[in-house]
Amino acid sequence: MADYKFNRTVRLDYHEVLAWQTEMYVAVGMSPTDANTSAHHLVIADARGVYSHGIMRTPTYIEKMRLGGLNPTARPEIIRGKGPTIVVDGHNAMGQVAASFGTEKAIELAREFGSSTVSITGSNHLGTCAYYTEQAAAADMVGFCWTINANNIMAPWGGIDARLGNNPFGISAPCLTRPPVTLDMATSVVARGKIAMAMKTGTQIPSNWALDKFGNPTTDPEAAFHGTVQPSGEYKGYGLTFMNAIVSAILNGSAFGEDVGDFFENPTQVQNTGHLLQFIDISAIDDVTAFKQRMDNAVTYLKAANRREGVDEIFVPGEMEARSFARQTEQGIDYPLEVIQELAQLGTTLGVSTRPEWTAEVAVR
Amino acid sequence: MADYKFNRTVRLDYHEVLAWQTEMYVAVGMSPTDANTSAHHLVIADARGVYSHGIMRTPTYIEKMRLGGLNPTARPEIIRGKGPTIVVDGHNAMGQVAASFGTEKAIELAREFGSSTVSITGSNHLGTCAYYTEQAAAADMVGFCWTINANNIMAPWGGIDARLGNNPFGISAPCLTRPPVTLDMATSVVARGKIAMAMKTGTQIPSNWALDKFGNPTTDPEAAFHGTVQPSGEYKGYGLTFMNAIVSAILNGSAFGEDVGDFFENPTQVQNTGHLLQFIDISAIDDVTAFKQRMDNAVTYLKAANRREGVDEIFVPGEMEARSFARQTEQGIDYPLEVIQELAQLGTTLGVSTRPEWTAEVAVR
Repeated sequence: MADYKFNRTVRLDYHEVLAWQTEMYVAVGMSPTDANTSAHHLVIADARGVYSHGIMRTPTYIEKMRLGGLNPTARPEIIRGKGPTIVVDGHNAMGQVAASFGTEKAIELAREFGSSTVSITGSNHLGTCAYYTEQAAAADMVGFCWTINANNIMAPWGGIDARLGNNPFGISAPCLTRPPVTLDMATSVVARGKIAMAMKTGTQIPSNWALDKFGNPTTDPEAAFHGTVQPSGEYKGYGLTFMNAIVSAILNGSAFGEDVGDFFENPTQVQNTGHLLQFIDISAIDDVTAFKQRMDNAVTYLKAANRREGVDEIFVPGEMEARSFARQTEQGIDYPLEVIQELAQLGTTLGVSTRPEWTAEVAVR
Repeated sequence: MADYKFNRTVRLDYHEVLAWQTEMYVAVGMSPTDANTSAHHLVIADARGVYSHGIMRTPTYIEKMRLGGLNPTARPEIIRGKGPTIVVDGHNAMGQVAASFGTEKAIELAREFGSSTVSITGSNHLGTCAYYTEQAAAADMVGFCWTINANNIMAPWGGIDARLGNNPFGISAPCLTRPPVTLDMATSVVARGKIAMAMKTGTQIPSNWALDKFGNPTTDPEAAFHGTVQPSGEYKGYGLTFMNAIVSAILNGSAFGEDVGDFFENPTQVQNTGHLLQFIDISAIDDVTAFKQRMDNAVTYLKAANRREGVDEIFVPGEMEARSFARQTEQGIDYPLEVIQELAQLGTTLGVSTRPEWTAEVAVR
């Protein structure tokens, strides 16, 4: 994800984009704190190179807030609890706001009980799972985040109807001298956006990306778009997808199956998305420094493996994103000019001004 | 896994095999309780059709006990604890004994705290993850079980050296009127045993099963056997494999990397295998019956999807195994005659007698 190539890019300062995006979410009615949480999530995703979950989503989020699909002033609430195990109702807040509330509680509870389980309902698309699990890692915890995805695009194995999302999950653990190791993956081979992109550019797709509407592998992006995405790891990926739906959504009664609305196509529909956080305080298991040293050693060990021809470097999960993050928070985040221009237009309707040089063609690099 | 075809089979009564196997583990020094736990695990795996983790492993386990690699009289012990979060040292007990001890504690703690986290070290190969997660499901819990595998057979993505196992994990959740939904998967495309089998029979293998020692996909089972298994889901599967090693083994200081001994090739070596159990008591999240009804509905919904041509039925994870279990516990378990003959010979050295009709050629079906 970390190495996007854009035709026309503009490089923007991390803090300035954050302030700009925060202002937009305030303009649509969010509290400054919630607006900052939402914007922070998106800009962090961009800095990590995961642009698909960054500020390019702001127009969709804001449209939903304007049309009632998302409640900008909702306050997430603990509706049930037993020691380190709680249920949070997001009351239709931004997923980022509900999941951040849950993350804060998960850290507090794991600190007290050694581990915690936070089941979140009444939420929305939470962005990247990594955002929450890396907060666990920063608190010297191992973090798991499971979520059902916003629309049904995958068939059960052997089937042809889209009845599952490509439900993503994340797991993070901290190192001593390196960034945390973070897996953040959806359970399809690729995101559906890549198929849409291939359709736009008229490019054939690899035959393991998608099935056509008859359930057969296809290289035609159009047929793929009207079919279903293939699970990563075939029937195993299908199994993982369903289990993720169970633990994130079915567990607490959030939307599953026919109740799942399309996040993009129906801006007035309440999503009722579910998530699950499981955090483990490392100090409850072992000495934290000893653990982090083992993590460093393990990463070094894997990276030192002999490589197949043409491979310059072996990466551990999240390493490319961490590298992109370090570079882009320091030197500025490269954005496609079109995304910034679209957001500037949205800003105009919200009364949020955009620095003229951000959208000027002359700024194009 | 559930539909093995054997050349020559013998059908044995579930309870009789269990008693016979228990006797063998008692003969090698285990307490009757631990012997029963171990045998029960293996016979259940066979009944579910997961023969690779059944009694065909008894000769290896018993050899390790005789040669010091496994301690038949070890008592697992809680060595650290904070509320629902504990660390168990298996003291080199059978993995099945250590993980069963952990499962018992995980259920007790989840009942008290709504969820629990049990980190197990000093253990051995635990058999199937499903055995433990289905105990969670039977206790009206959602169960997660993570474990590092017994030997390194997978390369980090882009690498050619075997530095990871195909670390398996399991997740179960109960239904109202159906068997629990259980995912139990290793993170390779297939088990290495399938490559060994193809080598034996001189059959080509699919190109996504393994890489040769240069890191290239191969259809030659011999080249594959001297190479590495491919992760299920390519780089995503590699990521999941490493995360599993982190949460099961690196977390509590169990063996990883160069410290991982080969379970089969070195019977005197202590393994120090790590596992992680995470159980969630459903009653802490929602009404249990309401949840189970949602599970039934979800399974029905997925199974009712339209099917691709040639597919007779859509299955949910664990369903085929549950069907095999119901049939084989009722009608008897079909075993390859060779496995029973080998075990009968082992029985002779242990002073455990085998019913003559079990190994007679005339009994062959």
